[in-house]
Amino acid sequence: MIKTEAAHSLRLAAYQPDIPQNTGALIRLCAGFDVPLDLIEPFGFIWDERKIKNSAMDYFDIAKIHRHASWDRFCGHYAARRLVLLSTKASVPYTEFRFSPGDILLLGRESAGVPPEIHAQIPDRVVIPMAPHARSFNIAMAGAIILSEALRQLQSQQLQGRRL
Amino acid sequence: MIKTEAAHSLRLAAYQPDIPQNTGALIRLCAGFDVPLDLIEPFGFIWDERKIKNSAMDYFDIAKIHRHASWDRFCGHYAARRLVLLSTKASVPYTEFRFSPGDILLLGRESAGVPPEIHAQIPDRVVIPMAPHARSFNIAMAGAIILSEALRQLQSQQLQGRRL
Repeated sequence: MIKTEAAHSLRLAAYQPDIPQNTGALIRLCAGFDVPLDLIEPFGFIWDERKIKNSAMDYFDIAKIHRHASWDRFCGHYAARRLVLLSTKASVPYTEFRFSPGDILLLGRESAGVPPEIHAQIPDRVVIPMAPHARSFNIAMAGAIILSEALRQLQSQQLQGRRL
Repeated sequence: MIKTEAAHSLRLAAYQPDIPQNTGALIRLCAGFDVPLDLIEPFGFIWDERKIKNSAMDYFDIAKIHRHASWDRFCGHYAARRLVLLSTKASVPYTEFRFSPGDILLLGRESAGVPPEIHAQIPDRVVIPMAPHARSFNIAMAGAIILSEALRQLQSQQLQGRRL
Protein backbone atom coordinates (compact mmCIF):
# COMPACT_ATOMS: atom_id res chain seq x y z
CA MET A 1 0.00 0.00 0.00
CA ILE A 2 1.35 3.40 -0.92
CA LYS A 3 1.08 5.75 2.04
CA THR A 4 0.36 9.34 1.19
CA GLU A 5 2.03 12.04 3.25
CA ALA A 6 0.07 13.75 6.00
CA ALA A 7 -1.35 17.19 5.30
CA HIS A 8 1.44 18.92 7.20
CA SER A 9 4.11 16.96 5.24
CA LEU A 10 6.73 17.55 7.90
CA ARG A 11 9.69 15.21 8.14
CA LEU A 12 12.25 14.72 10.90
CA ALA A 13 15.84 13.90 9.95
CA ALA A 14 18.80 12.77 12.03
CA TYR A 15 22.34 13.43 10.77
CA GLN A 16 24.63 10.45 11.35
CA PRO A 17 23.02 9.39 14.62
CA ASP A 18 25.54 7.93 17.05
CA ILE A 19 23.40 6.46 19.84
CA PRO A 20 21.02 3.58 19.00
CA GLN A 21 18.71 4.22 21.97
CA ASN A 22 18.11 7.78 20.78
CA THR A 23 17.49 6.59 17.24
CA GLY A 24 14.94 4.13 18.60
CA ALA A 25 13.31 6.90 20.62
CA LEU A 26 13.04 9.07 17.49
CA ILE A 27 11.47 6.16 15.59
CA ARG A 28 8.81 5.73 18.27
CA LEU A 29 8.23 9.50 18.36
CA CYS A 30 7.75 9.74 14.61
CA ALA A 31 5.47 6.69 14.52
CA GLY A 32 3.35 8.29 17.24
CA PHE A 33 2.99 11.53 15.29
CA ASP A 34 2.82 9.77 11.90
CA VAL A 35 5.80 11.78 10.66
CA PRO A 36 8.39 10.15 8.37
CA LEU A 37 11.94 9.90 9.72
CA ASP A 38 15.08 10.28 7.60
CA LEU A 39 18.28 8.70 8.91
CA ILE A 40 21.45 9.98 7.27
CA GLU A 41 24.36 7.53 7.20
CA PRO A 42 27.00 6.63 8.17
CA PHE A 43 25.71 5.86 11.65
CA GLY A 44 27.98 6.03 14.67
CA PHE A 45 26.95 2.50 15.61
CA ILE A 46 26.46 -0.87 13.96
CA TRP A 47 22.85 -0.96 12.74
CA ASP A 48 21.22 -3.75 14.72
CA GLU A 49 17.44 -3.95 14.51
CA ARG A 50 17.20 -5.79 17.81
CA LYS A 51 19.03 -3.00 19.64
CA ILE A 52 17.01 -0.30 17.92
CA LYS A 53 13.80 -2.12 18.77
CA ASN A 54 14.69 -2.02 22.47
CA SER A 55 13.69 1.62 22.47
CA ALA A 56 11.60 1.81 19.28
CA MET A 57 9.61 -1.29 20.30
CA ASP A 58 7.03 -2.46 17.79
CA TYR A 59 6.77 1.11 16.50
CA PHE A 60 9.78 0.16 14.40
CA ASP A 61 7.47 -1.79 12.11
CA ILE A 62 4.94 0.98 11.58
CA ALA A 63 7.35 3.92 11.38
CA LYS A 64 8.13 5.42 7.98
CA ILE A 65 11.93 5.25 8.03
CA HIS A 66 14.00 6.40 5.09
CA ARG A 67 17.74 5.67 5.22
CA HIS A 68 20.09 7.77 3.10
CA ALA A 69 23.59 6.53 2.29
CA SER A 70 25.16 9.97 2.63
CA TRP A 71 24.48 13.65 3.27
CA ASP A 72 24.73 14.37 -0.47
CA ARG A 73 22.19 11.68 -1.29
CA PHE A 74 19.86 13.10 1.34
CA CYS A 75 20.20 16.63 -0.06
CA GLY A 76 19.69 15.42 -3.61
CA HIS A 77 16.55 13.56 -2.64
CA TYR A 78 14.95 16.60 -1.01
CA ALA A 79 16.46 19.37 -3.12
CA ALA A 80 13.19 21.33 -3.25
CA ARG A 81 12.47 21.28 0.47
CA ARG A 82 13.50 23.61 3.26
CA LEU A 83 15.80 22.28 5.97
CA VAL A 84 15.44 23.66 9.48
CA LEU A 85 18.47 22.84 11.61
CA LEU A 86 18.20 22.50 15.37
CA SER A 87 21.46 23.80 16.81
CA THR A 88 22.70 24.99 20.18
CA LYS A 89 24.62 27.66 18.21
CA ALA A 90 21.49 29.13 16.60
CA SER A 91 19.98 32.38 17.81
CA VAL A 92 16.30 32.07 16.83
CA PRO A 93 14.19 30.35 19.51
CA TYR A 94 12.26 27.47 17.92
CA THR A 95 8.97 28.89 19.22
CA GLU A 96 9.54 32.13 17.29
CA PHE A 97 10.30 30.36 14.03
CA ARG A 98 7.41 29.97 11.56
CA PHE A 99 7.41 26.39 10.36
CA SER A 100 5.89 25.62 6.96
CA PRO A 101 4.35 22.52 5.39
CA GLY A 102 7.09 20.45 3.81
CA ASP A 103 9.84 21.51 6.22
CA ILE A 104 12.42 18.91 7.16
CA LEU A 105 13.57 19.34 10.76
CA LEU A 106 17.21 18.32 10.99
CA LEU A 107 18.91 17.07 14.16
CA GLY A 108 22.69 16.88 14.44
CA ARG A 109 24.71 14.18 16.14
CA GLU A 110 24.24 13.73 19.87
CA SER A 111 27.99 14.18 20.34
CA ALA A 112 28.83 17.01 17.95
CA GLY A 113 25.86 18.44 16.05
CA VAL A 114 26.54 18.83 12.32
CA PRO A 115 29.92 19.78 10.79
CA PRO A 116 30.55 23.54 10.33
CA GLU A 117 30.20 23.36 6.53
CA ILE A 118 26.71 21.87 6.82
CA HIS A 119 25.80 24.35 9.55
CA ALA A 120 26.84 27.16 7.21
CA GLN A 121 24.81 25.90 4.24
CA ILE A 122 21.51 25.84 6.18
CA PRO A 123 20.23 29.40 6.75
CA ASP A 124 17.21 28.35 8.83
CA ARG A 125 18.51 27.44 12.26
CA VAL A 126 16.66 27.33 15.55
CA VAL A 127 17.63 26.81 19.17
CA ILE A 128 15.77 25.52 22.21
CA PRO A 129 16.57 28.17 24.84
CA MET A 130 18.19 26.62 27.90
CA ALA A 131 19.04 27.55 31.45
CA PRO A 132 22.49 29.21 31.64
CA HIS A 133 24.09 26.19 33.33
CA ALA A 134 22.90 23.68 30.70
CA ARG A 135 24.81 22.67 27.55
CA SER A 136 22.29 20.69 25.55
CA PHE A 137 19.21 18.51 25.59
CA ASN A 138 19.25 14.84 24.74
CA ILE A 139 18.83 14.68 20.97
CA ALA A 140 15.66 12.58 21.09
CA MET A 141 14.09 14.90 23.66
CA ALA A 142 15.08 17.90 21.52
CA GLY A 143 13.48 16.18 18.52
CA ALA A 144 10.25 15.72 20.48
CA ILE A 145 10.22 19.39 21.49
CA ILE A 146 10.81 20.86 18.05
CA LEU A 147 8.64 18.38 16.13
CA SER A 148 5.65 18.83 18.44
CA GLU A 149 5.95 22.62 18.17
CA ALA A 150 6.12 22.49 14.36
CA LEU A 151 3.05 20.23 14.27
CA ARG A 152 1.21 22.53 16.68
CA GLN A 153 1.90 25.55 14.49
CA LEU A 154 0.80 23.84 11.28
CA GLN A 155 -2.35 22.40 12.82
CA SER A 156 -3.16 25.82 14.24
CA GLN A 157 -2.70 27.34 10.76
CA GLN A 158 -4.98 24.68 9.27
CA LEU A 159 -7.68 25.43 11.83
CA GLN A 160 -7.42 29.17 11.18
CA GLY A 161 -7.62 28.51 7.45
CA ARG A 162 -10.86 26.56 7.91
CA ARG A 163 -12.37 29.35 10.00
CA LEU A 164 -11.71 32.05 7.40
CA MET B 1 21.99 29.23 48.58
CA ILE B 2 18.21 29.38 48.47
CA LYS B 3 17.03 29.22 44.88
CA THR B 4 13.89 31.17 44.11
CA GLU B 5 11.41 29.67 41.68
CA ALA B 6 11.34 30.86 38.10
CA ALA B 7 8.65 33.35 37.08
CA HIS B 8 6.56 30.63 35.43
CA SER B 9 6.75 28.45 38.59
CA LEU B 10 5.92 25.30 36.66
CA ARG B 11 6.92 21.94 38.08
CA LEU B 12 7.08 18.52 36.43
CA ALA B 13 6.18 15.46 38.52
CA ALA B 14 6.58 11.73 37.84
CA TYR B 15 4.31 9.26 39.62
CA GLN B 16 6.22 6.18 40.79
CA PRO B 17 8.62 6.11 37.85
CA ASP B 18 9.58 2.57 36.88
CA ILE B 19 12.42 3.03 34.38
CA PRO B 20 15.66 4.65 35.58
CA GLN B 21 16.75 5.78 32.09
CA ASN B 22 13.53 7.74 31.68
CA THR B 23 13.92 9.25 35.13
CA GLY B 24 17.41 10.34 34.16
CA ALA B 25 16.10 11.80 30.92
CA LEU B 26 13.48 13.80 32.84
CA ILE B 27 16.17 15.08 35.21
CA ARG B 28 18.26 16.34 32.29
CA LEU B 29 15.17 17.86 30.67
CA CYS B 30 14.19 19.74 33.82
CA ALA B 31 17.73 20.95 34.43
CA GLY B 32 17.83 22.28 30.87
CA PHE B 33 14.59 24.22 31.33
CA ASP B 34 15.35 25.14 34.95
CA VAL B 35 12.11 23.52 36.08
CA PRO B 36 11.97 21.60 39.39
CA LEU B 37 11.17 17.88 39.19
CA ASP B 38 9.07 15.98 41.75
CA LEU B 39 9.58 12.23 41.99
CA ILE B 40 6.82 10.38 43.80
CA GLU B 41 7.85 7.13 45.53
CA PRO B 42 7.89 4.19 45.64
CA PHE B 43 9.97 3.82 42.49
CA GLY B 44 9.71 0.74 40.34
CA PHE B 45 13.49 0.34 40.53
CA ILE B 46 16.22 0.46 43.13
CA TRP B 47 17.40 4.06 43.33
CA ASP B 48 21.00 4.03 42.17
CA GLU B 49 22.58 7.39 41.47
CA ARG B 50 25.14 5.87 39.14
CA LYS B 51 22.44 4.35 36.95
CA ILE B 52 20.38 7.52 36.97
CA LYS B 53 23.44 9.55 36.04
CA ASN B 54 23.96 7.43 32.93
CA SER B 55 21.11 9.32 31.32
CA ALA B 56 20.92 12.41 33.56
CA MET B 57 24.71 12.93 33.28
CA ASP B 58 26.09 15.83 35.31
CA TYR B 59 22.69 17.52 35.07
CA PHE B 60 21.84 15.37 38.06
CA ASP B 61 23.86 17.73 40.23
CA ILE B 62 22.24 20.94 39.04
CA ALA B 63 18.66 19.67 38.75
CA LYS B 64 16.16 20.66 41.43
CA ILE B 65 14.87 17.23 42.42
CA HIS B 66 12.30 16.80 45.16
CA ARG B 67 11.55 13.24 46.27
CA HIS B 68 8.22 12.50 47.98
CA ALA B 69 7.78 9.35 50.08
CA SER B 70 4.20 8.80 48.90
CA TRP B 71 1.37 10.18 46.79
CA ASP B 72 -0.31 11.54 49.93
CA ARG B 73 2.83 13.35 51.01
CA PHE B 74 3.15 14.83 47.54
CA CYS B 75 -0.47 16.03 47.57
CA GLY B 76 -0.12 17.46 51.06
CA HIS B 77 2.99 19.37 50.08
CA TYR B 78 1.33 21.04 47.08
CA ALA B 79 -2.26 21.25 48.33
CA ALA B 80 -2.79 24.73 46.89
CA ARG B 81 -1.51 23.98 43.40
CA ARG B 82 -3.25 22.68 40.30
CA LEU B 83 -2.27 19.28 38.97
CA VAL B 84 -2.45 18.68 35.22
CA LEU B 85 -2.34 14.98 34.41
CA LEU B 86 -0.97 13.74 31.10
CA SER B 87 -3.00 10.68 30.17
CA THR B 88 -3.68 8.66 27.02
CA LYS B 89 -7.28 8.44 28.32
CA ALA B 90 -7.80 12.21 28.41
CA SER B 91 -9.80 14.00 25.73
CA VAL B 92 -8.35 17.55 25.78
CA PRO B 93 -5.33 17.95 23.48
CA TYR B 94 -2.43 19.44 25.46
CA THR B 95 -2.10 22.28 22.94
CA GLU B 96 -5.68 23.39 23.60
CA PHE B 97 -5.26 23.43 27.37
CA ARG B 98 -4.43 26.79 28.98
CA PHE B 99 -1.54 26.24 31.37
CA SER B 100 -1.15 28.62 34.30
CA PRO B 101 1.79 29.71 36.45
CA GLY B 102 2.14 27.30 39.35
CA ASP B 103 0.78 24.27 37.48
CA ILE B 104 2.33 20.90 38.28
CA LEU B 105 2.44 18.67 35.20
CA LEU B 106 2.00 15.07 36.31
CA LEU B 107 3.27 12.06 34.37
CA GLY B 108 2.05 8.55 35.15
CA ARG B 109 4.12 5.37 35.17
CA GLU B 110 5.65 4.28 31.88
CA SER B 111 3.93 0.91 32.27
CA ALA B 112 0.47 1.83 33.56
CA GLY B 113 -0.16 5.57 33.96
CA VAL B 114 -1.69 6.46 37.33
CA PRO B 115 -4.23 4.29 39.21
CA PRO B 116 -7.93 4.93 38.39
CA GLU B 117 -8.59 6.60 41.78
CA ILE B 118 -5.86 9.17 41.16
CA HIS B 119 -7.00 9.66 37.58
CA ALA B 120 -10.51 10.40 38.90
CA GLN B 121 -9.37 12.93 41.49
CA ILE B 122 -7.56 15.14 38.94
CA PRO B 123 -10.07 17.05 36.79
CA ASP B 124 -7.44 18.65 34.54
CA ARG B 125 -6.25 15.98 32.14
CA VAL B 126 -4.61 16.38 28.76
CA VAL B 127 -3.59 14.04 25.97
CA ILE B 128 -0.96 14.20 23.25
CA PRO B 129 -2.93 13.26 20.12
CA MET B 130 -1.40 10.28 18.38
CA ALA B 131 -1.65 8.45 15.09
CA PRO B 132 -4.40 5.78 15.19
CA HIS B 133 -1.89 2.91 15.20
CA ALA B 134 0.11 4.24 18.17
CA ARG B 135 -0.53 3.44 21.85
CA SER B 136 1.68 5.86 23.72
CA PHE B 137 4.81 7.95 23.70
CA ASN B 138 7.83 7.21 25.82
CA ILE B 139 7.16 8.94 29.15
CA ALA B 140 10.28 11.13 29.01
CA MET B 141 9.48 12.21 25.45
CA ALA B 142 5.90 12.97 26.51
CA GLY B 143 7.27 15.01 29.40
CA ALA B 144 9.42 17.02 27.00
CA ILE B 145 6.44 17.69 24.72
CA ILE B 146 4.03 18.85 27.41
CA LEU B 147 6.56 20.80 29.48
CA SER B 148 7.90 22.71 26.48
CA GLU B 149 4.35 23.62 25.41
CA ALA B 150 3.43 24.83 28.91
CA LEU B 151 6.59 26.95 29.03
CA ARG B 152 5.87 28.34 25.56
CA GLN B 153 2.37 29.37 26.59
CA LEU B 154 3.48 31.06 29.81
CA GLN B 155 6.37 32.89 28.15
CA SER B 156 4.01 34.02 25.42
CA GLN B 157 1.60 35.32 28.10
CA GLN B 158 4.45 37.16 29.84
CA LEU B 159 5.46 38.83 26.58
CA GLN B 160 1.87 39.85 25.87
CA GLY B 161 1.57 41.20 29.40
CA ARG B 162 4.63 43.40 28.92
CA ARG B 163 3.27 44.76 25.66
CA LEU B 164 -0.05 45.87 27.18
